[in-house]
Amino acid sequence: MQRFFEPRSVVLIGTSRQTGPGAYNNLEMLLNYGYPGHIYLVHPKVPDIMGYKTSPRVADLPEVPDLAVISLGRDRVPAAVRDCVHHGIKRLVVISQGFADADEKGKELQEDVVRLAREHGARVVGPNTMGIINPFYGFTTAFIDVPRDPNPAPLTVVAQSGAFQVGAVSFTGRMGKAIDIGNAGDVDVVEVLEYLEHDPQTRIIVLHMEGITRGRLFLNTAARIIRTKPIIAIKTGRSAAGAQAAMSHTGSLVGEDAIFDLALAEAGVIRVKNLVEMLAVCRAFLHFEPLKGPRLGVVTATGAFGIITADCCEDYGLELAPFPEALREMEEPRIDWHKLHNPVDLWPLGMVTGSFTGVFKRSLIGLLEDGRVDGAVALAPVFVSPCHADLDIPAAVRKIQKHNPEHKPLAILFYGDEAAMVAQARELAGDPGVACFDSVDEAIMGLAATWRYRQFLERPAPGDFTLPEPAVSRRGRLPSEGVLVGEEALNVLKAYDLPLVPGVLAADEAGAVAAAAQMGYPVVLKIISAAWLHKSDWGGVLLNVANEAKLRQGFRDLLARFRQRTPDGVLDGILVQKQVKGIELLCGLKRDPQFGPVLVAGAGGIYTEVLKDVARALAPVTPDQAAQMLRALKIYPILKGARGQKGVHLPSLVETLVNLSRLATDYPTIRELDLNPVLATPEACWCVDCRIVVGE
Amino acid sequence: MQRFFEPRSVVLIGTSRQTGPGAYNNLEMLLNYGYPGHIYLVHPKVPDIMGYKTSPRVADLPEVPDLAVISLGRDRVPAAVRDCVHHGIKRLVVISQGFADADEKGKELQEDVVRLAREHGARVVGPNTMGIINPFYGFTTAFIDVPRDPNPAPLTVVAQSGAFQVGAVSFTGRMGKAIDIGNAGDVDVVEVLEYLEHDPQTRIIVLHMEGITRGRLFLNTAARIIRTKPIIAIKTGRSAAGAQAAMSHTGSLVGEDAIFDLALAEAGVIRVKNLVEMLAVCRAFLHFEPLKGPRLGVVTATGAFGIITADCCEDYGLELAPFPEALREMEEPRIDWHKLHNPVDLWPLGMVTGSFTGVFKRSLIGLLEDGRVDGAVALAPVFVSPCHADLDIPAAVRKIQKHNPEHKPLAILFYGDEAAMVAQARELAGDPGVACFDSVDEAIMGLAATWRYRQFLERPAPGDFTLPEPAVSRRGRLPSEGVLVGEEALNVLKAYDLPLVPGVLAADEAGAVAAAAQMGYPVVLKIISAAWLHKSDWGGVLLNVANEAKLRQGFRDLLARFRQRTPDGVLDGILVQKQVKGIELLCGLKRDPQFGPVLVAGAGGIYTEVLKDVARALAPVTPDQAAQMLRALKIYPILKGARGQKGVHLPSLVETLVNLSRLATDYPTIRELDLNPVLATPEACWCVDCRIVVGE
Repeated sequence: MQRFFEPRSVVLIGTSRQTGPGAYNNLEMLLNYGYPGHIYLVHPKVPDIMGYKTSPRVADLPEVPDLAVISLGRDRVPAAVRDCVHHGIKRLVVISQGFADADEKGKELQEDVVRLAREHGARVVGPNTMGIINPFYGFTTAFIDVPRDPNPAPLTVVAQSGAFQVGAVSFTGRMGKAIDIGNAGDVDVVEVLEYLEHDPQTRIIVLHMEGITRGRLFLNTAARIIRTKPIIAIKTGRSAAGAQAAMSHTGSLVGEDAIFDLALAEAGVIRVKNLVEMLAVCRAFLHFEPLKGPRLGVVTATGAFGIITADCCEDYGLELAPFPEALREMEEPRIDWHKLHNPVDLWPLGMVTGSFTGVFKRSLIGLLEDGRVDGAVALAPVFVSPCHADLDIPAAVRKIQKHNPEHKPLAILFYGDEAAMVAQARELAGDPGVACFDSVDEAIMGLAATWRYRQFLERPAPGDFTLPEPAVSRRGRLPSEGVLVGEEALNVLKAYDLPLVPGVLAADEAGAVAAAAQMGYPVVLKIISAAWLHKSDWGGVLLNVANEAKLRQGFRDLLARFRQRTPDGVLDGILVQKQVKGIELLCGLKRDPQFGPVLVAGAGGIYTEVLKDVARALAPVTPDQAAQMLRALKIYPILKGARGQKGVHLPSLVETLVNLSRLATDYPTIRELDLNPVLATPEACWCVDCRIVVGE
Repeated sequence: MQRFFEPRSVVLIGTSRQTGPGAYNNLEMLLNYGYPGHIYLVHPKVPDIMGYKTSPRVADLPEVPDLAVISLGRDRVPAAVRDCVHHGIKRLVVISQGFADADEKGKELQEDVVRLAREHGARVVGPNTMGIINPFYGFTTAFIDVPRDPNPAPLTVVAQSGAFQVGAVSFTGRMGKAIDIGNAGDVDVVEVLEYLEHDPQTRIIVLHMEGITRGRLFLNTAARIIRTKPIIAIKTGRSAAGAQAAMSHTGSLVGEDAIFDLALAEAGVIRVKNLVEMLAVCRAFLHFEPLKGPRLGVVTATGAFGIITADCCEDYGLELAPFPEALREMEEPRIDWHKLHNPVDLWPLGMVTGSFTGVFKRSLIGLLEDGRVDGAVALAPVFVSPCHADLDIPAAVRKIQKHNPEHKPLAILFYGDEAAMVAQARELAGDPGVACFDSVDEAIMGLAATWRYRQFLERPAPGDFTLPEPAVSRRGRLPSEGVLVGEEALNVLKAYDLPLVPGVLAADEAGAVAAAAQMGYPVVLKIISAAWLHKSDWGGVLLNVANEAKLRQGFRDLLARFRQRTPDGVLDGILVQKQVKGIELLCGLKRDPQFGPVLVAGAGGIYTEVLKDVARALAPVTPDQAAQMLRALKIYPILKGARGQKGVHLPSLVETLVNLSRLATDYPTIRELDLNPVLATPEACWCVDCRIVVGE
């Protein structure tokens, strides 16, 4: 990848002879950007562009350039790619649109391009991309004139859109390297990450993702990289993911977006929800060491903003630190009625002592020096009036920072005169450990993300996300497509030691009576027949059969119903099942197109859709992970035993989940699987019914 | 109130003789602000300040000024107030801090000040306030030099902090009138609202609230005003409200913040969650007519941002409009593979036609002219390079607006060069119906708030929020303080026609047997005795007593337990209750210190704390409102009958809620009341147990 970012020579194919407004001439941009390497141009007709001689064909080039940039109409791209790879060029950036981003024909063209490249050991970025911008080296493939930052940031953006290159100031705050992987036809986010892992010019990685291939490999790569470099990701398309059809409860309860969320969190990637949070979080990581704890000290010129900041802390999972007693002893004697607490309302002290700046400075020093304060937030007005010339926050901050050797984060919020705010923020821009935010919400969002990152670092590294190779499946092959219910599905469960409610398939009334007597009343009776897949809807299930007389009557009723509805049907028998009373849970599987099998546990029965109380984990899971899923449920207190009620037998639920996740990895064709309900009792848990959806 | 904002004359008491930095001299600020009225100064020693002659005492003033501004140390404030009211001054602004904002002594001082004023028919703004700023008239009481906006906005801020005056640009975007009511010792938000209702210089009202007195009156006032002027409110202190102690489920389930939320929504006030949303919403109302529908057209220079905008719409309750066919017919023929949809990805068309600006213009016109599009959002890059001088969004917008006679909102998001973005946004600042936002999230937040407002306007006006006078309570007086349980509580319910589970208090075993035979097995047995308030915990309740033999045994067991634990206790009898099976609900009451009695309904039994599925309404409620509460529950599908299960009898639940809310208004001393569970069956609903908390 490095030569994609730092090519010693480049050939531009499809560059217009026009320049200036409306031309989108990438040669012009490359020259403006101060590219230090050698530029070649290929043009079939025009002998030179902007004074650079062109070659009519790639084959005519005097050397093999490190990189080719192709910006032709889509139909002419495959031929150009062929020319490049035949000439030995190993790196291609295909700017052109109209490929997998457009229609079926475009998809085929893209496949052609990628196949051609791979056959010759070449790699392609794009198509449908603005390509690469590297302000450190002075290289750009963009057809937009993005000004080169003379002091590039150690923040690299990997996006599926050029907008993050054009609008870096708006989206990530500062510009570093950036790559738009576009349709990611060949080079994908995993490869770029592998390069950035060891890139000394990259300290922070920002991902804009619309989707992903090689999801498990991505997770392994990301989980490794975040140990040294934070990864901030925005995953878009949340609404579209919600619209997909599903054939089971599990399918409808767990959208793709929730799985993305889960997967990123397991890998330790900081997911941001929107662009406001993205800017705030990038700013925090650019300026701050990650918080070492969640406790903030807050100073404000007005009590009202102390309350607002406290609300924000609660919203984003941070806390207010206890007020430092040393600071209390120093400041409280200055004013008879003012009690200090955190957030510190500076105004009364500022008025009494005659110096707001002085109180601002002393309070922040007192907070930052206290061991129980992990970072600080300061809200301060900015005035333009000469009446307030005494207020000089930047000067105060520089003094404060001398008392902050650990570089605990100090977030500053200015309000007041707009131009003066911008000027003061600029004055502070270079101070390590200090950052100015546009709102207290953004400051707290940013700080909270650094604390999330610290917590990722402090927890044990996640295991290998790689999916195990499917073992020989214990119940033979499943049909390649379709829905399995009833015995067929239950037999798959049985093969994976999932606990089925005890049952006997009775051939006649006497057998049913004997079975019920053996297992004890009450029991459930069910018609078992290939012709009765919808046995519940057809009245083929009798619940709560309380005694022998009712069983005999019920058996006869079911037989009569069977004969009446399906006179030619083959009856396997009447299933006599133990009637189990317990808490109804849902366990299930869903295969995600990006991350593979996902295990689900939640509230079941009639509460399933109503409560949407589900926990998820990438399969397979360890017993610890399964137990963690159960703890994450809202109904967990009920499972554990709440308000004088007995809880359920958690170890058997854990075992069920672990076994179910093994089933998932052995059967990669299972798309969705529902166990609903799983009945959990104080002694055990029981699978009552199952539905398995196989195939695409 | 008007003379508070436009005093013809003002006396400043406590003004420093110092001026300039650090002096916070309010005379200096008033002069800078261009006050057109007459200024008097009172100072015991200094003969003149800034060339203005002082009087040693208020009594010496040659006239009675419209307004006095007091900024003395707190101990000297009551005497100054006395001097003012004795001189006949009717309006006071008490700037000084250290009153109810500080300690008990301060609270007393504040009460003194307010009492003094009221005794003389005078009114007080504050204490602990920056007071009033009116840029239309040129009046300020602030001790900060806030620059006077020559073109004030029709947006008035009513805050409990001066920060919203100092930082108007940061918090509401533009400055209009502003009042800091501070501790609101006398003048409160209701009175200010009543003034603003008819103030021609106020078109939008922004409230910053830390709390409220006269909550119901506030709701009536607000609900009336929002018919003509939107009210945007930030209520702070969400985290503090969560910390309060509660003695019942209802109490713990319904925090004060949730009640504030409910009350503001019932009145039609637009509550914003944080300052980011506040700025976005103010900007939307300043520039836009409220959306007439939720359907937006979106144009963007990159497909990626179309997806991001779609995500935002879903987050904030707006929708993407269907793509206009007229626009498709006009644009799609220009490019062979590009299919258009909403959001419109402009780039391919811009490249093919050679004019991004042209496509931008035509697409927005096509969207805004379509009847199914209620507003539009445009994301566009801003370049500084002369290579992109052809892109002129402000010029395009002006042309677009000629095709937008209905002034459908057009929100613009620039990204790219920061200075150029600010300049282009400024160019568009005066265009009606156009607003520039800092992020797409803020644009959608703002637009969504105008749509919420439109929906408030379109729904029927809420009824009178005034609490009815308590009727003669049907069950006599309750103890002034304490917790009522068991029969004592149930008797209160009975008086309000709340359906109690049928029960007979049996004196002996034979009586119990007869009662059970009458009502039918299974039954519940309960020890009833003043000594057994904790009967459940003490084993004084037997559930599911299935037949006569078990009843006889249970009766004897309970008697034995009673005699053993409380040998001297007086046994009222053993209550035989019908064992009802049904869906467990919680109904309850909570008295809010700000808004009075609140009715609660939710999931009950063991699910109460786990699910926290509750609906709330200010009591009393109509049957319609009670039915609406039930519909708002997550478990409503279960109540209605989901997945083949019978539902419950909703009319009896509605009646129960209505009756409970009447009980609430008749007993203003009830602080919390729990009916948990209420058992709902297909035929009826039944209150099984009750706990009533009375007093403070």
